[in-house]
Amino acid sequence: MIIVMKRGAQKSIIDHVLQEITKSGLDPIPLHGTERTVIAVIGDERLLDIHHLRSLPGVNDVMRVLQPYKLASRDTKYENTVIEVNGVKIGSSELAIMAGPCAVENEDQVEATARAVAQYGCKILRGGAFKPRTGPYSFEGLGVSGLKILRAAADRHGLAVVTELMDIRQIDLVSKYADIIQIGARNMQNYDLLNAIGETKKPILLKRGLSATITELLLSAERIILHGNQQVILCERGIRTFETETRNTFGVNSIPLLKELTHLPVIADPSHATGRRSIVPAVALAGIAAGADGLIIEVHPKPDTALCDGDQSITPDMFKKLMKQIKMVAKAVKRTLP
Amino acid sequence: MIIVMKRGAQKSIIDHVLQEITKSGLDPIPLHGTERTVIAVIGDERLLDIHHLRSLPGVNDVMRVLQPYKLASRDTKYENTVIEVNGVKIGSSELAIMAGPCAVENEDQVEATARAVAQYGCKILRGGAFKPRTGPYSFEGLGVSGLKILRAAADRHGLAVVTELMDIRQIDLVSKYADIIQIGARNMQNYDLLNAIGETKKPILLKRGLSATITELLLSAERIILHGNQQVILCERGIRTFETETRNTFGVNSIPLLKELTHLPVIADPSHATGRRSIVPAVALAGIAAGADGLIIEVHPKPDTALCDGDQSITPDMFKKLMKQIKMVAKAVKRTLP
Amino acid sequence: MIIVMKRGAQKSIIDHVLQEITKSGLDPIPLHGTERTVIAVIGDERLLDIHHLRSLPGVNDVMRVLQPYKLASRDTKYENTVIEVNGVKIGSSELAIMAGPCAVENEDQVEATARAVAQYGCKILRGGAFKPRTGPYSFEGLGVSGLKILRAAADRHGLAVVTELMDIRQIDLVSKYADIIQIGARNMQNYDLLNAIGETKKPILLKRGLSATITELLLSAERIILHGNQQVILCERGIRTFETETRNTFGVNSIPLLKELTHLPVIADPSHATGRRSIVPAVALAGIAAGADGLIIEVHPKPDTALCDGDQSITPDMFKKLMKQIKMVAKAVKRTLP
Amino acid sequence: MIIVMKRGAQKSIIDHVLQEITKSGLDPIPLHGTERTVIAVIGDERLLDIHHLRSLPGVNDVMRVLQPYKLASRDTKYENTVIEVNGVKIGSSELAIMAGPCAVENEDQVEATARAVAQYGCKILRGGAFKPRTGPYSFEGLGVSGLKILRAAADRHGLAVVTELMDIRQIDLVSKYADIIQIGARNMQNYDLLNAIGETKKPILLKRGLSATITELLLSAERIILHGNQQVILCERGIRTFETETRNTFGVNSIPLLKELTHLPVIADPSHATGRRSIVPAVALAGIAAGADGLIIEVHPKPDTALCDGDQSITPDMFKKLMKQIKMVAKAVKRTLP
Repeated sequence: MIIVMKRGAQKSIIDHVLQEITKSGLDPIPLHGTERTVIAVIGDERLLDIHHLRSLPGVNDVMRVLQPYKLASRDTKYENTVIEVNGVKIGSSELAIMAGPCAVENEDQVEATARAVAQYGCKILRGGAFKPRTGPYSFEGLGVSGLKILRAAADRHGLAVVTELMDIRQIDLVSKYADIIQIGARNMQNYDLLNAIGETKKPILLKRGLSATITELLLSAERIILHGNQQVILCERGIRTFETETRNTFGVNSIPLLKELTHLPVIADPSHATGRRSIVPAVALAGIAAGADGLIIEVHPKPDTALCDGDQSITPDMFKKLMKQIKMVAKAVKRTLP
Repeated sequence: MIIVMKRGAQKSIIDHVLQEITKSGLDPIPLHGTERTVIAVIGDERLLDIHHLRSLPGVNDVMRVLQPYKLASRDTKYENTVIEVNGVKIGSSELAIMAGPCAVENEDQVEATARAVAQYGCKILRGGAFKPRTGPYSFEGLGVSGLKILRAAADRHGLAVVTELMDIRQIDLVSKYADIIQIGARNMQNYDLLNAIGETKKPILLKRGLSATITELLLSAERIILHGNQQVILCERGIRTFETETRNTFGVNSIPLLKELTHLPVIADPSHATGRRSIVPAVALAGIAAGADGLIIEVHPKPDTALCDGDQSITPDMFKKLMKQIKMVAKAVKRTLP
Repeated sequence: MIIVMKRGAQKSIIDHVLQEITKSGLDPIPLHGTERTVIAVIGDERLLDIHHLRSLPGVNDVMRVLQPYKLASRDTKYENTVIEVNGVKIGSSELAIMAGPCAVENEDQVEATARAVAQYGCKILRGGAFKPRTGPYSFEGLGVSGLKILRAAADRHGLAVVTELMDIRQIDLVSKYADIIQIGARNMQNYDLLNAIGETKKPILLKRGLSATITELLLSAERIILHGNQQVILCERGIRTFETETRNTFGVNSIPLLKELTHLPVIADPSHATGRRSIVPAVALAGIAAGADGLIIEVHPKPDTALCDGDQSITPDMFKKLMKQIKMVAKAVKRTLP
Repeated sequence: MIIVMKRGAQKSIIDHVLQEITKSGLDPIPLHGTERTVIAVIGDERLLDIHHLRSLPGVNDVMRVLQPYKLASRDTKYENTVIEVNGVKIGSSELAIMAGPCAVENEDQVEATARAVAQYGCKILRGGAFKPRTGPYSFEGLGVSGLKILRAAADRHGLAVVTELMDIRQIDLVSKYADIIQIGARNMQNYDLLNAIGETKKPILLKRGLSATITELLLSAERIILHGNQQVILCERGIRTFETETRNTFGVNSIPLLKELTHLPVIADPSHATGRRSIVPAVALAGIAAGADGLIIEVHPKPDTALCDGDQSITPDMFKKLMKQIKMVAKAVKRTLP
């Protein structure tokens, strides 16, 4: 850690900061510059509280040298973490494609979708039984019966299930039906929920929050790992910016950057990242070209009758065509489809 | 609601949209323009799903005419909602000042703070027993014993207590000690939690999420009211923008705008909105000048020893001086301190 | 255009708005809803001033139905605009790759770069002679002698030249040396400059401003076309968001969306969009996969000695490898390299 | 400056970085930590190019210790810069209120506005003769005749004139009519224009760019000062964020922060910062309460007939009332109206 003192900070003030660092068991090295004093700290700076140091008298700024996460860092574990689900090795050279409807609406809809996506090479079915909705007047999912419909359709077509968990009191319930538990963007910093799923054994799909930095996403993953669960899949699903033509702004930069910073798998969600069906395939391909380990994508047999997010769901036909293109892009980045 | 069709949309496509609207019990009026057809919908558009309409074939865009919230709207209830806590009428011409430490650390710290803020005219003590922390290695609060310390100090000085609830399983516990339950920025869209506190009888302090629009903040308030609790206090605490010199960007525009749009009280949190002690008083005054119904502000007897957010806590002396300035600014906007 | 009146707006107030619209030669149609009146306007709404309408008494909101640009719109001209430079048909199925150093530093540097990029298939050399720099103490380019170095190297290797124009007084000078004139992100809304280059005959590379919406980018293109120059190439080069791990956030969504909205060519700049050499190739491929008509990319023979933006320049070896990958991704989206 | 090396960077790599720093005449101090080496640089780091250092092999990150500006910094000049215009000492305890229409439309409009604002205590008339407009179809100002109208009205009422300069070729023209030259938000990084006005003797009103950081604003001021003109007034006029309910987000935090960082005067523009007439007064008061040295505010005798930005102009009556409130808020922050 680097502590930048205010200009003209007196010796007694500087000494106080040095003592605070020593108290934490680390070694401070004061450097007296032409305009101000800078204190470098040797040792594991994660032991220091950056906010506390910033509040000390005479301190102008405090800068980290190390990343604040450790377990999620590629510096700590160099090899990719590979999570196997339904025979797909997520995080390996194989791409993991998860597809299905936004919300489970009824048996027919899920059956039609599951059949189609399985036919075109998808191994993991997505679908929401509990839906987070901004307004309290929207359809919020079928709940348990939705989970059952999803599971049954997946089983009929040899698919695994990924579905969202929102309420900490439903971990056991959702775990019974899901192969991968999704934590949605709005819950990326719901710390009690993260702690709790850290104690399960299920793979977790952790979506980036609407305004979460890459560092914050990795700190949420760190929390899950720290609580005992190393099977975390990160998901870039678009961030909120000033641009309103698309629902979100797909932060494609984060994909190669996360692959550098962490050993965890990283997938892309082109549906939420755009909110516009017509550009979903192009953005899906961009995610694969950028190095994503897979996709989670909304497919609906009749998007114009969907109860939720129909405007960003693609049709089975579009999905079929997309899978062909993915195969070609995959080759350019040395990836394969299972 | 206004539905803008794509250029050249055929009659059969337009008819399908008209039928969908009629099915929902509303009246569509098609307007054939020079370049495209627009459909205006007469009736309560909150019955229509904007995403569903957008997904219909031939639809280019869908725009709301009404606000998506109703119970929280000043159109529905013109008079200010006034919430009385410890004799302070929050939402009336009286300003509500809530002050105290970021986190409860120990009895001495809370006692010193409570004594000081009570002496300078504050009626409501803030303090965190459960702290949301981005990184899993930071101090997360004293829990129940923190709640007890807070309550005891508040009682000794005739103060009410506002404190944060993070975990839905602790509603009963927190309700026992708090007069106002705070929902933090990270939980503004934790819908199960919002539904649950909607069923309590406690006043709720609802903080604006880091990247929540004003409409989304009001929709979260709507949800709480819909579940039975009308005592919702909104709080502008800064939003995340590209500017990194301050922790957040205080969205002062939202204060007069919220006062126009809703009957609910609106307060400002200059501590989180800035993250820099030296500018907290200036921004606190800005909030009052802009028409806020009060403040929630971090005060710590010794900010440089704080376990949490010391860099944004002001000292009791700064608080004393600030209260004098608030009194003068209040007069300009026809407000008083209790 | 749709004008939403305030709740309870009186007849005389509504009539005044109707008159204002009629005065502009358009037809207003008032629709009296359950809660408020909405006025739909038939005719070319580009003739109305949205700010003026919003300022009329009783008006709550005004929403456009048509896009505010016309000449740049695909609705007006369906076929792609194809701009031919040095045999490359920009905007056709052929990809246009522009590569070279950030700033022209000296003859050797430009010669080495030009030779390398030409060898690996690039037809257009980029390089800055006038450099916009945030701080006044940074290297600002070699000026005219930079232009000469660039032109000479390009001619030796059969390349065209794209270079930035910043100062309206230098249009003639820059036009003498450049085949494509670049308008940088900071000048995307320098209207006098846009008007002036609209009167030239040179192809223009118009970069998206740091915080420009897609609509604003298209309005700047519209301005250039309106002043007489239809040869505008749009460039997505990243926008400013809250994320600071990368220099900018590459707005990949804008690529397929712009291709829908406009007939103009759209290219991607992965160098400025990321600011990090290690992720430039991944983001370049993402741009192509998303449907870009080409790339503008920084290549430097020795990035660690660069006077400008060395941290985002790739080496000739990286460029060579990237060109191979581009070829493979191009096939998936039915594109070719010339 | 602090240079953080990559984990495991070899000695030869580190030595190369040390040499590069020594070459620039500064002293590097390598600190070998538990995980990586950090190099602290003693001396004036403004001599080093941060991008160049970042591009050196083995470098992970580079962090500034000093601010990149010097002439604009309060560290360099502690006393407030006071700029006297028409008897108002801008930057002193006296508040500078600049008011008038967005655009000069005709003599009557300017006369009515000038008379009203002068009557209520304003000393500086604002008004645009050259208007930057996003779309090419909007009213762009009266040009020279607008300057003449503005000057004549100001002279009749004993007012100074502040007006915007957009085109570098019109410096002499605008200087003839204006007492203060305004550089608009879109031109905050138009470096040739900044360099040129740095060579004039006129006070400059420099508006913060739509997505400019506080540091970038100060670097643009630095540029003007470096070119010879120390009379720079900074203006916070709102930044672009995800919130669309208001035209911009008034960055009120920047006001007290700028007053800490720089000796230059800082004023607020509540009109552009909000875009909504009804909240302009509240936000104006917030600016004063936060410590602004003045305001620039749009006043129009009949906002609903304005050719430009009528929706954010206040009426003379609203201005009169606001001036009374400003007087009261001013007292709380030890300011006066002239």
